[in-house]
This record gives sequence, structure tokens and C-alpha cells, in this order.
Amino acid sequence: MSKLLENVVSELSRLPGVGRRTALRLAMHILKTDKESVRCMTSSIDEFRNGICRCAQCNNLSDTEVCEICSDRTRDRSTVCVVEQVGDLLSIENTRQYRGVYNVLGGVISPMQGIAPSDLRIDLLLDRIALGEVKEVIIAIPASVEGETTLYYLMNCLRRFPHLKITTIARGIGFGDELEYVDEHTITQAMANRREIERPEDE
Amino acid sequence: MSKLLENVVSELSRLPGVGRRTALRLAMHILKTDKESVRCMTSSIDEFRNGICRCAQCNNLSDTEVCEICSDRTRDRSTVCVVEQVGDLLSIENTRQYRGVYNVLGGVISPMQGIAPSDLRIDLLLDRIALGEVKEVIIAIPASVEGETTLYYLMNCLRRFPHLKITTIARGIGFGDELEYVDEHTITQAMANRREIERPEDE
Repeated sequence: MSKLLENVVSELSRLPGVGRRTALRLAMHILKTDKESVRCMTSSIDEFRNGICRCAQCNNLSDTEVCEICSDRTRDRSTVCVVEQVGDLLSIENTRQYRGVYNVLGGVISPMQGIAPSDLRIDLLLDRIALGEVKEVIIAIPASVEGETTLYYLMNCLRRFPHLKITTIARGIGFGDELEYVDEHTITQAMANRREIERPEDE
Repeated sequence: MSKLLENVVSELSRLPGVGRRTALRLAMHILKTDKESVRCMTSSIDEFRNGICRCAQCNNLSDTEVCEICSDRTRDRSTVCVVEQVGDLLSIENTRQYRGVYNVLGGVISPMQGIAPSDLRIDLLLDRIALGEVKEVIIAIPASVEGETTLYYLMNCLRRFPHLKITTIARGIGFGDELEYVDEHTITQAMANRREIERPEDE
């Protein structure tokens, strides 16, 4: 087998979810793509890996010291949404509904994976709160054992700010989810948090 | 969203089977990988794309003008196996059973996809046969409409070499396949090509 092919296949196989067969398929695709486009792709990877940094205020991925969101004067600095990772922030941004700022923890507490509270950027959240502008902290971390542990730890950290409103995003049945396939815990929460439907007024 | 992240996500999304979500997951993986390893991966892609060529004798991917298989003096040049693409050649090589040489067509005739007979490297096969060494041509192209068209075309090209033995690989039930899920055409062929089982001799 060609050394160049062998090499690219073994390198691509290191990517998550890519086995040798997929790597070979990707290599064949690359072979059919013009050289300039391939160069664009590999440059974008290198530039991303070498150029990206973490926002000094919220730990979001950023091209500059402070990210676009934190630099945006139109965003509401009185509300901070705490998320586990950048992907979660991007999902919330995609809704185009949230106008506050973020705190990207960079993980959740997990003794199994060796992630301690000190590995999370809770310090940035506390620094921001110390500035005095924050009124509400929305905690949007996953509803898992690790998430609950992290929530408990965060609540403890925030105890010394009694004026803060602390909320978590609603747990419930997702849009389009079929009740039949939803787990018991979610159904229990959705039932407990039921809301009264407003009746049309009698005329 | 960070321009560097946006850029790498849109570049990775061009790969087959990679949507924006997967591209983001790949980007996050790249971020966790050390810079040197990322550089190794991107270099291997560029070197592959810019350095690889096609074997002048069989159209296999090769680092040199003539591929390792065609250069290997221990391979049997009297048998040529005709395959559609390099992946097929690699699958046959993986069995470590075949000791002949190959002819990589580079596709099968497909008017739908605009692949004409002249796009296939049948010329290399004919050149090799003209040298006089070839005794058998094994045709190992897919059993599809395009494959059958290509087979018919090849048979026509080879008509002027009446001394050649021409074979196709056996169609039948794959190892571990469940009969229940095998298509009718394959079952029909497997039934028609049935073989008698040798009985143990009476003692």
C-alpha cells in the first residue's frame, strides 16, 4: 500500500467516530477534491488549532482575548447563562432569543473522568458577579449525576451573593418528543411542573 | 461565533457524511489534541493530495511511477484482476491470498454519472495483455447494472485475445450472511452455482 495513503488513513482514523474504512473513504474524497480546496481545509484546521483562544471573561472560544459576545455592548450583562461547553452556548445562540452573556465551565464535575471543581472556570463567573452588574444566573447544565453535582457545588459558591436570582432551564418533554419514549425522570418532572392553561374568557 | 471556528466547521462540513454537528464535534476534538499531532494530520492530508500519483501500469494509487505491486518481482504477472477502484484492490490485498497483479478501472460505465468507457483505464489492461505475459483476467467488478454494462464492454475488448482465460469472482451468500436477508438475485445465483459436497468414503 502507498505510504502516503497509509499515512493519511492512519491519521484520519484518529478522529472520533472514524474507522479505517471511513478514513479510506475520506482519503478518496480528498483525492477527488482540487488541491487548492484541500489546502484551504487543512489551513483552516491548523489556523483554528493554533489561533483560537479562550475568552478571558467567559471561557468561550474566541479569536481575540475577549469574545464577540462579551465585547458586544448590546448584550445584557445582568444575566449570565452557565453552560458546560461551547457547543451548548452555540445551541442557545442559534435560538437567537437569549441576549445575556455566558459562562462556559469547560466541563462538569466528574471524579470518574478526573474533573475537579478547580478544572471548571467558575472563577470567571465569580469575578463577573463581583463586578456587581449580575442580577440573574441561569444554570443550563445537563441533568445527569455529574450535572447535579456541579449544580450543588455552584449553589454553594453562589451562597455568598444572596441578592442573586438563580434559575435553571426547564426540564420537560421536548418539542416533537413522543411521551412513550421519554424517560421516567423527565416525565415526573414534566408532570410536577405542569402549568395551567388559560381558558378563553366566556363571552 | 469565532471566525476560526466558523471556518473550520464549514470546511469540515464539506467532507462526505459530515454535517455541521459532526464538524463541530471534530473541531472540539482537534482543540483537545496537541498542536504537533494536529500538524501531523494536516501535513499527511496535504502530502497525500499533492504527492500521490497513479501507477502507470495498473492505475493503483502509488507514491512512485509504478506501484509496489507492479514492481514486486514475486507477483504473478500472468493473472490480472480487474477492479473498479482502489478500495476494492485493498480489500483483496487484505486477504493475502491473491498473488497476481491488478487493473484499476477507476470506475464503471455509467451514462447517468457521465462515466464513459474512455474514462476507464482499460487501455492499461490491453497494454499489459499485448506484452504477452497474461494468461487469465479475473473480473471483480460489482454486480450492478453499471457493473454488467462494464463487463459486457470488457468482454468485447478482450474478444481479440482468444487464448485468454476470463473469469469473474463467484457470486453467492457471504460468510455470516443470513439467507432471510439476502436479495433474490444473489440467492438465485447461489442456487444455480451450487456445488456437490464430497461424501466421506465408506470404510
